[in-house]
Amino acid sequence: MNINVNENSSEESMKDFDSKEEKQKNKKVQMSELRQDLVTGDWVVIATGRAKRPDEFGKYERIQNDTGIENCLFEDPVASGQEKDVLIYHKEDGDWTLRVFPNKYPAFSRGGLPRNLDEGPYFAMNGSGYHEIIVTRDHYRQLACMNQVEIAEVFDAFQDRYLDLMKKRSVNFIAVFHNHGKEAGASIPHPHSQLMAIPVISPYIKLELDGSEMYHKSNRKCVYCDMVEYEIKNKKRLVFENDEFLAFCPFSSRVAFEVWVVPKKHSPYFERITDEQKMQLADVFGKTLNTMYKSLNDPPYNFYIHTSPCDGKDYPHYHWHIEILPHTATWAGFELETGIEISTLQPEVAAEFLRKK
Amino acid sequence: MNINVNENSSEESMKDFDSKEEKQKNKKVQMSELRQDLVTGDWVVIATGRAKRPDEFGKYERIQNDTGIENCLFEDPVASGQEKDVLIYHKEDGDWTLRVFPNKYPAFSRGGLPRNLDEGPYFAMNGSGYHEIIVTRDHYRQLACMNQVEIAEVFDAFQDRYLDLMKKRSVNFIAVFHNHGKEAGASIPHPHSQLMAIPVISPYIKLELDGSEMYHKSNRKCVYCDMVEYEIKNKKRLVFENDEFLAFCPFSSRVAFEVWVVPKKHSPYFERITDEQKMQLADVFGKTLNTMYKSLNDPPYNFYIHTSPCDGKDYPHYHWHIEILPHTATWAGFELETGIEISTLQPEVAAEFLRKK
Repeated sequence: MNINVNENSSEESMKDFDSKEEKQKNKKVQMSELRQDLVTGDWVVIATGRAKRPDEFGKYERIQNDTGIENCLFEDPVASGQEKDVLIYHKEDGDWTLRVFPNKYPAFSRGGLPRNLDEGPYFAMNGSGYHEIIVTRDHYRQLACMNQVEIAEVFDAFQDRYLDLMKKRSVNFIAVFHNHGKEAGASIPHPHSQLMAIPVISPYIKLELDGSEMYHKSNRKCVYCDMVEYEIKNKKRLVFENDEFLAFCPFSSRVAFEVWVVPKKHSPYFERITDEQKMQLADVFGKTLNTMYKSLNDPPYNFYIHTSPCDGKDYPHYHWHIEILPHTATWAGFELETGIEISTLQPEVAAEFLRKK
Repeated sequence: MNINVNENSSEESMKDFDSKEEKQKNKKVQMSELRQDLVTGDWVVIATGRAKRPDEFGKYERIQNDTGIENCLFEDPVASGQEKDVLIYHKEDGDWTLRVFPNKYPAFSRGGLPRNLDEGPYFAMNGSGYHEIIVTRDHYRQLACMNQVEIAEVFDAFQDRYLDLMKKRSVNFIAVFHNHGKEAGASIPHPHSQLMAIPVISPYIKLELDGSEMYHKSNRKCVYCDMVEYEIKNKKRLVFENDEFLAFCPFSSRVAFEVWVVPKKHSPYFERITDEQKMQLADVFGKTLNTMYKSLNDPPYNFYIHTSPCDGKDYPHYHWHIEILPHTATWAGFELETGIEISTLQPEVAAEFLRKK
């Protein structure tokens, strides 16, 4: 093969980006920003040079995966052969409003303490734990369209199941999450959340635990409390707030329209939330999902609760919160290689857009 | 709201999974496995209870995003207004076979040393760096269908550009990656790889650097060398090998059909690869992509090179390699919450399937 390095470029590379031509070139291109997650130290890139306008994120074709209410596995879980309920809530008149049952195809299954499955130099154990589905009654009524009381009931269920499962011998961390839309991994369209109670502390939580502990050692303050204080004062990334909760687009958003919902009062443990706080959470959280639903054309999204492990240790420096990730980007080679996400919208612009809708 | 905990389940939860009924239940469900990444310590779940057969992974409808060769931006990059080439390879008869040019919408842009963009408690800097596109000549001839010499030329280009960019003041890490298929993030269908030369060490590389250093301290051996030795001896996860390289499905595969291509001889630095090694790499790597192409119905995939940073430090304990991730799963709420991926196929089964095709 013959190699022909372009002369201008070769020259350019020797000048090392100092020429007038270079500076002019850079004017044309909006310079991207590397922002660091204050808790984990991870980086994201905000590259607005390749940006859409905020209202363009809602322009896409959703994958339709609703095979209809008559074929729905969660419309009547008993009739469709799901596992037995572990929790049911009822209305005064008798019909159920929410039920929780074990996943029929669990990623973690009930089976006592984890057994060692090491092989050669590798470490493994069997996936002991619990994998449950939390289903709300109405096939067509998603969380974004529910009222405050209905949303508070979902958090009631998360807390009820959490308090039960955290006592189990094999459980050291409980993941509570929700997938909405096929693109975000929801294989069954009937609104449902999931809960996995697992024997290991997950790496992302570990990063936040370590980061918040380090920040506390250096600053004698909780890093999330500092963020809450700054975002309330600064306002530009704020989406909604009330007395107890704050919704804002995080400074180092990994995707366009990422929103965190954080309690204003320091608390490491989601499961200690009070009934009054649940109503306040339902208010801010519900408004956030609803504004996304309306302004972004019912986007696919994931949300999850990040809270302290339930491994018997104390995590006084941690601060539980919810992270909402609309499915507005494909994490491709660069993100998979590096763990650095590239987002094309500034969180300040995203927050302003969500506030105004 | 009225709460009605199902009696049986409540009872079950007090028994804490020790009853006969529990044991019978567990027989029905294939118990999942938690496997640990030997380098990073991260966990994955192999949950075969929800598994497809290996040959079912190739049954899906690909998103068609080829607007045709006549509208292709990379078919004639100069005519379509791309940036000036920084590298071109030619055939003997004059036509180009491969060219490299800066991305018109860079995630990292040439602009000198990073400037501080801190705000309140947060840290940020501008995204100084280089973002280049590596394009091969044929619009329809993807890497999986190229011959050994053609693939070796692509690695030539990676190395050439790497050696040039690693000298730049602002560059501390170089990410080389390839997205194939719309689902895997390729917005332009003409085969192309990308290279981003960036000022920070990426978190995933940091995990591998730290993990391999720790392993070396404990075992006086390279963790990747140990894996290579074990996988050659053990054979069940092996896909292809020759004198210099090994392709295998990693023990803690994050997705079905994940494959790593690892040099057999210890080397921390991709950029020091010899011409002979490039040919051997092209052999194993090309065969791997080709068997995926044939047996999995031209799957969307990402691959990337994990190699030592170019920040002036030495990383003697690290071992460069390539990771190929077919787009066989959607990482949803649980994965985003925890960083623990759930895969539905054992790497041993995946490897056997790829070897046989």
